[in-house]
Amino acid sequence: MDSESFRRDGHQLIDWIADYLAHPERYAVLAQVEPGQVKGSLPAEPPERPEPFESLLEDVEKIIAPGLTHWNHPGFFAYFGITGSGPGILGELLSSAFNVNAMLWRTSPAATELEELVLDWLRQLLGLPPEFMGIINDSASVSSLCAIAVAREALGLRIREEGLAGRPDLPRLRLYTSEQAHSSIEKAAIVLGLGQAGVTKVAVDDEFRLRSDALEAAIKEDLKTGWRPFCVVATVGTTSTTSVDPVPEVADVCQRYKLWLHVDAAYAGAAAILPEKRWSLAGCERADSIVMNPHKWLFVPLDCSAFYCRHPGVMKQAFSLVPEYLRTPEEDRVRNFMDYGIQLGRRFRALKLWMVMRAFGSEGLRQHLRAHIALAESFWGWIEASSDFELLAPVPFSVVCFRHRPCGLPDNGETEAYLNRLNERLLESVNGTGEVFLSHTELNGKFTLRMAIGNLSTTEAHVRRAWDLLRQSAERLDAELRPAALEA
Amino acid sequence: MDSESFRRDGHQLIDWIADYLAHPERYAVLAQVEPGQVKGSLPAEPPERPEPFESLLEDVEKIIAPGLTHWNHPGFFAYFGITGSGPGILGELLSSAFNVNAMLWRTSPAATELEELVLDWLRQLLGLPPEFMGIINDSASVSSLCAIAVAREALGLRIREEGLAGRPDLPRLRLYTSEQAHSSIEKAAIVLGLGQAGVTKVAVDDEFRLRSDALEAAIKEDLKTGWRPFCVVATVGTTSTTSVDPVPEVADVCQRYKLWLHVDAAYAGAAAILPEKRWSLAGCERADSIVMNPHKWLFVPLDCSAFYCRHPGVMKQAFSLVPEYLRTPEEDRVRNFMDYGIQLGRRFRALKLWMVMRAFGSEGLRQHLRAHIALAESFWGWIEASSDFELLAPVPFSVVCFRHRPCGLPDNGETEAYLNRLNERLLESVNGTGEVFLSHTELNGKFTLRMAIGNLSTTEAHVRRAWDLLRQSAERLDAELRPAALEA
Repeated sequence: MDSESFRRDGHQLIDWIADYLAHPERYAVLAQVEPGQVKGSLPAEPPERPEPFESLLEDVEKIIAPGLTHWNHPGFFAYFGITGSGPGILGELLSSAFNVNAMLWRTSPAATELEELVLDWLRQLLGLPPEFMGIINDSASVSSLCAIAVAREALGLRIREEGLAGRPDLPRLRLYTSEQAHSSIEKAAIVLGLGQAGVTKVAVDDEFRLRSDALEAAIKEDLKTGWRPFCVVATVGTTSTTSVDPVPEVADVCQRYKLWLHVDAAYAGAAAILPEKRWSLAGCERADSIVMNPHKWLFVPLDCSAFYCRHPGVMKQAFSLVPEYLRTPEEDRVRNFMDYGIQLGRRFRALKLWMVMRAFGSEGLRQHLRAHIALAESFWGWIEASSDFELLAPVPFSVVCFRHRPCGLPDNGETEAYLNRLNERLLESVNGTGEVFLSHTELNGKFTLRMAIGNLSTTEAHVRRAWDLLRQSAERLDAELRPAALEA
Repeated sequence: MDSESFRRDGHQLIDWIADYLAHPERYAVLAQVEPGQVKGSLPAEPPERPEPFESLLEDVEKIIAPGLTHWNHPGFFAYFGITGSGPGILGELLSSAFNVNAMLWRTSPAATELEELVLDWLRQLLGLPPEFMGIINDSASVSSLCAIAVAREALGLRIREEGLAGRPDLPRLRLYTSEQAHSSIEKAAIVLGLGQAGVTKVAVDDEFRLRSDALEAAIKEDLKTGWRPFCVVATVGTTSTTSVDPVPEVADVCQRYKLWLHVDAAYAGAAAILPEKRWSLAGCERADSIVMNPHKWLFVPLDCSAFYCRHPGVMKQAFSLVPEYLRTPEEDRVRNFMDYGIQLGRRFRALKLWMVMRAFGSEGLRQHLRAHIALAESFWGWIEASSDFELLAPVPFSVVCFRHRPCGLPDNGETEAYLNRLNERLLESVNGTGEVFLSHTELNGKFTLRMAIGNLSTTEAHVRRAWDLLRQSAERLDAELRPAALEA
């Protein structure tokens, strides 16, 4: 493809995308395909001869797009709602055109320096202190893995040099996080050789927040039995309910026992750009490291995970390896980001974040976050006002946890079992319409529906439509499924 | 940005990129900026108010582009030459517009199935057997880390559950790779808790290939002294010289001692699409896992690392964690890629690879690889014919390792010390022209220049220009720097 073909095909694709972004609801939000259907529609062998771009786009139109779940759809309410906004998409386009590797300053000075700059911008918006050094990773999974790896290195037990296995001089190492923490924390512990047994999942209070008294009790018990506590991961915005752990209290515990404090604020960290939500990062100024994902609720396309750490020296100690072929004359005067993480190859991700922050301006970002929070509050209000639905967790941000609970049912195990079946069917039913897509979790044994708002194209009409679909399906399903024993 | 603004700004950006791709040599290939210069040219605080796209593009034009090292420049000969071709760039654009997360089949069926399909296409082109299951990671660093993590899990020592630390029942674990292996292997060992001591760097032969006799000797010695050997990482295309380890012999050793065989073919694996280079993956059909990066020499933009493993069950055992909020009704009937790696968040990377494979066709890919190899052979021929330059390693693919060695110098330590200084200065000098960018390595104590060819826009004229610059600078520098003691 020469540059003139690129120009022609590029214009065609931009038009296709502009049309798509104008009407993502032409497609079902949750893909209505069977397993194997997409693969079965495409040739099983690679083409020998070149194909024109038009053929590719035709297959995108006919096979790929209908086979996708549309995260851009205004009715996407599952997991965490996200939007890769226009400026972010164009930033990604430009990054892939430049195709630089930001492993060393030398291999792309502007990519390195823009990463430093834009993460400092973001740090300012979040109200974090300037001691935090920022780096962009692909995902919070990797950011938290790095955090725990650095915490492990900070123990000073020669783990980088000698490893963990077969060392009689090493104690068993323990990490603490809440029962509601994201699975990536446990996965990081597995990868790092701490094992699942190396993770204590601390109990939460009735609002799904880590209990700092239970944390301290677990640490004390471990110290008595020969474990070596080394790290606590607190969450600001848990995945199920967006609950916020009491970071100031957790920081006190960490200080008392000299433990590394990592904060997983992947989703809800974004809210701290709002003065009225700044409380959510309270205590985080005392953390050793924190992760927050602009690709979640700051309108940057996947992937962009901002990782901050106040101990860049320990990071480098944990990760830096410089073979001769990566030595550069200026290495003592610049930041070479490869020294601060797992991956050598690093895309120019700062560009899209920078474009989003400039195209929206801080006030634009704040305005959209407030709009999402307001929509979640409306939805929450309707739940509260309904006698057939109930809220299952507080709503600090833009995710509402709830379930259908027809009024008049007795409080007993049979009811609970029925409600779980009923809500599972309700989820299936509304998702089957193709108009909305919600996901679920489990809270205290209750099958819980999650309404997550985070898409720029979502308006009150879409939230209202979800509510209508939920009520209609709920009424129909309850009539159809309620066991005789529970009949009024 | 509404969809009409996206259309307008998108068209403008496509034109900008088309012009850039038509003339990347408008810029110096190696950025001619001082540390801090880019950062210092931009505001230290985020903008409060939205800015128009034109302002962003103006800063890209004036500050970002001149501050980049241009991997698209036809004179880019450093590290491994790469090209994010037009179809790949447009594929990335489309992925970021869709902005789906390919963590679960349900969250994007077409992304999951296209990933399965296109990695099977690539597997066919590489001549690997159908038992290999493919997954796309961001980087070879992560692919090799995953491989070693799975090898560790395959030991059956309850490492996932119990970890490595403080377990008197565990032996020390050892991984073997060559002295010429990529630094990512050692980094993976550090991250996984094996430590640097858990990596034995096996000696190489005079063509920089792992010596399988030395490998076996190291394993035997370890077995005597209580280490537990568990994994060998062979390299097809080492970073310094692109040497190819004798994988069939290594596979024999692995079979004999029941060790996991992982092959790092990140760069040179691509060559196996050529029948005449198929030998480079000989023996890899017996590997347990293999990584090959389409973002290196298959014209896909960063990032796209293809990881193949013949034990998907063990991969899942090593990595799968499914909290309630990620459960889906179809999970037993589909592939959920989050179960096979570290990251939960996964971009739709298959799209760009699919677009490249279709737009080029297999014959197009082969033709470009052959052209690069032919250019490297020309360059190598000029070195061979010159009395003032010498080749320092065989050239199996498109990277030439060489140095300036003025004729008539005695063979002694003083000469060697001088040649190292001279070649370092030579590298600096040609890179300072902005016309070419080469990188270096060290081979047997010799400062070695690397000429790596892999850019689609590179022609014989560019390679010839590099050669002219090298010769001119070399003559000048030798005249200027040669110490009196070495004068003829």
